[in-house]
Amino acid sequence: MKKALAIDAGGTKIYNTIVNDKGEIVAGVEKHNTPKTFEGILEVFRKIIAAHEDEVDIIAFATAGAVNNENTGIVSSTGNLPAEYPLLDFRSLSTKKVFVENDANAAAWAEHVIGVSKRMPHSVMLTLGTGVGGGIIVDNKLLKGKSGAAGEMHFKIYPDKRRRCTCGAFDCFEAYASGTGMRLTAEEISGRSDITTYDVIEGMRKGNDLMTKIFQKWQNDLLAGLAGLANIFDPCALVLSGSMAEFADLEYLEKEVNSQIVTSPTKVLRANAGNYAGMIGAALLGLSRRLNG
Amino acid sequence: MKKALAIDAGGTKIYNTIVNDKGEIVAGVEKHNTPKTFEGILEVFRKIIAAHEDEVDIIAFATAGAVNNENTGIVSSTGNLPAEYPLLDFRSLSTKKVFVENDANAAAWAEHVIGVSKRMPHSVMLTLGTGVGGGIIVDNKLLKGKSGAAGEMHFKIYPDKRRRCTCGAFDCFEAYASGTGMRLTAEEISGRSDITTYDVIEGMRKGNDLMTKIFQKWQNDLLAGLAGLANIFDPCALVLSGSMAEFADLEYLEKEVNSQIVTSPTKVLRANAGNYAGMIGAALLGLSRRLNG
Repeated sequence: MKKALAIDAGGTKIYNTIVNDKGEIVAGVEKHNTPKTFEGILEVFRKIIAAHEDEVDIIAFATAGAVNNENTGIVSSTGNLPAEYPLLDFRSLSTKKVFVENDANAAAWAEHVIGVSKRMPHSVMLTLGTGVGGGIIVDNKLLKGKSGAAGEMHFKIYPDKRRRCTCGAFDCFEAYASGTGMRLTAEEISGRSDITTYDVIEGMRKGNDLMTKIFQKWQNDLLAGLAGLANIFDPCALVLSGSMAEFADLEYLEKEVNSQIVTSPTKVLRANAGNYAGMIGAALLGLSRRLNG
Repeated sequence: MKKALAIDAGGTKIYNTIVNDKGEIVAGVEKHNTPKTFEGILEVFRKIIAAHEDEVDIIAFATAGAVNNENTGIVSSTGNLPAEYPLLDFRSLSTKKVFVENDANAAAWAEHVIGVSKRMPHSVMLTLGTGVGGGIIVDNKLLKGKSGAAGEMHFKIYPDKRRRCTCGAFDCFEAYASGTGMRLTAEEISGRSDITTYDVIEGMRKGNDLMTKIFQKWQNDLLAGLAGLANIFDPCALVLSGSMAEFADLEYLEKEVNSQIVTSPTKVLRANAGNYAGMIGAALLGLSRRLNG
């Protein structure tokens, strides 16, 4: 059985483990703080690879940032990672085959192969965390687009420049449906600058009207995006992952999406491939490419 | 050389001609008013087919409505066509092979094979007419989704139930970027209930400030959708077709889209496969399927 050394490179943590070609994690998961400098990150990568590359067939990265169609490097900026990071040619890190995919794409692939959207040829996964990541499966393949950057969830759901998005544009879906989005919605509605998403969720659970109103506003912004994506892709399922997905009312969202769309009924599901779905998906993608040639 | 009898079935007109497997129109184009009844439409189809089926290898329809993945029938309602129309099994119309595709999808395919997006593996085409049709090419294939209905341009660009869309939901892209959308925008801004898109376009061309303002509002709504689609699909080009595409300022749209997106630079192009692109695309799709099996 083929195995991959899987590395998840995010803005705050770097994880690594070993994943086999069935998508099973077959070693412990190691965790590192992401160094602030590019050299520091390279050193962490090199140590992980030196320690484990003899045990595996390939190295598979799930990383922040849009990844090219050759799965060798990054084609975008990467938010809270150092400015030099997107210049890295990941192939230079090992004499073994190195495969890279965007973390949200990799996680969507894990759901598609071993998770909640298994055996569904068409799905749209949203990772609802600090931001919103997207991974889209069309005809059993990842949607990558011309440069590899497809699946960016930056489409306007408000028209009048209410909120600046991390991407520089105004009023993107991400700026409302993310955790950051919920916090900003809470600030706007409550008038309190110190309010947190925790306050909203806890308040809603205790039946507080204002917190419930804030939550519903957030969820309806999420709904607007989900319905649009269902009309564009006609997917078998819309899959929600990430910390904010825990709080979403899937039954409500599925009913509302299906009452609004003109395509065929779809499901709204919670991801279930686990916290390491990004590493699993990158490993599965990398190993299948290797096995296919 | 293989040939298709191509039939374009729309809500007001039915056209037919003969198209070869290079996408060339090799006969005259005939035009019929679309009958109000299902029986009347069937009669037009039967007459066209009886007159021409001996000259061709297949019958290829470009039709209003979402078409299934088997390309045999319709899976949605079809606006201004009779209620029974979506129940038609198009295969029953001839002993020859009958192929059906949605008209916007077929037109997008024509642009992809012989038109402005030739040799581009990824493109998004919008047909801007009374409504907005969508045809999306991913990896040199039409995006169809699980039931065949993908590419519906119903995603919200306003949040607050300003305008009811033909699909029943509120504030879809279609309700703003279509010709109908421009008229409604004109009514709202001018306060005149008798204003037409013609008034807006003519007024803008003559330098009228109010008409220019209305036009710019319409174009910026179009821009919002284009930028979102570019972030979602990372396409080689956004292609505009239909009567309203004539008026769009492509240079402005391309510059603005590229200033807003986080994916890679894209082009905004005007379709050039002509008024019969739907028939050409349906014929090309149908003939390639036949030739492949």
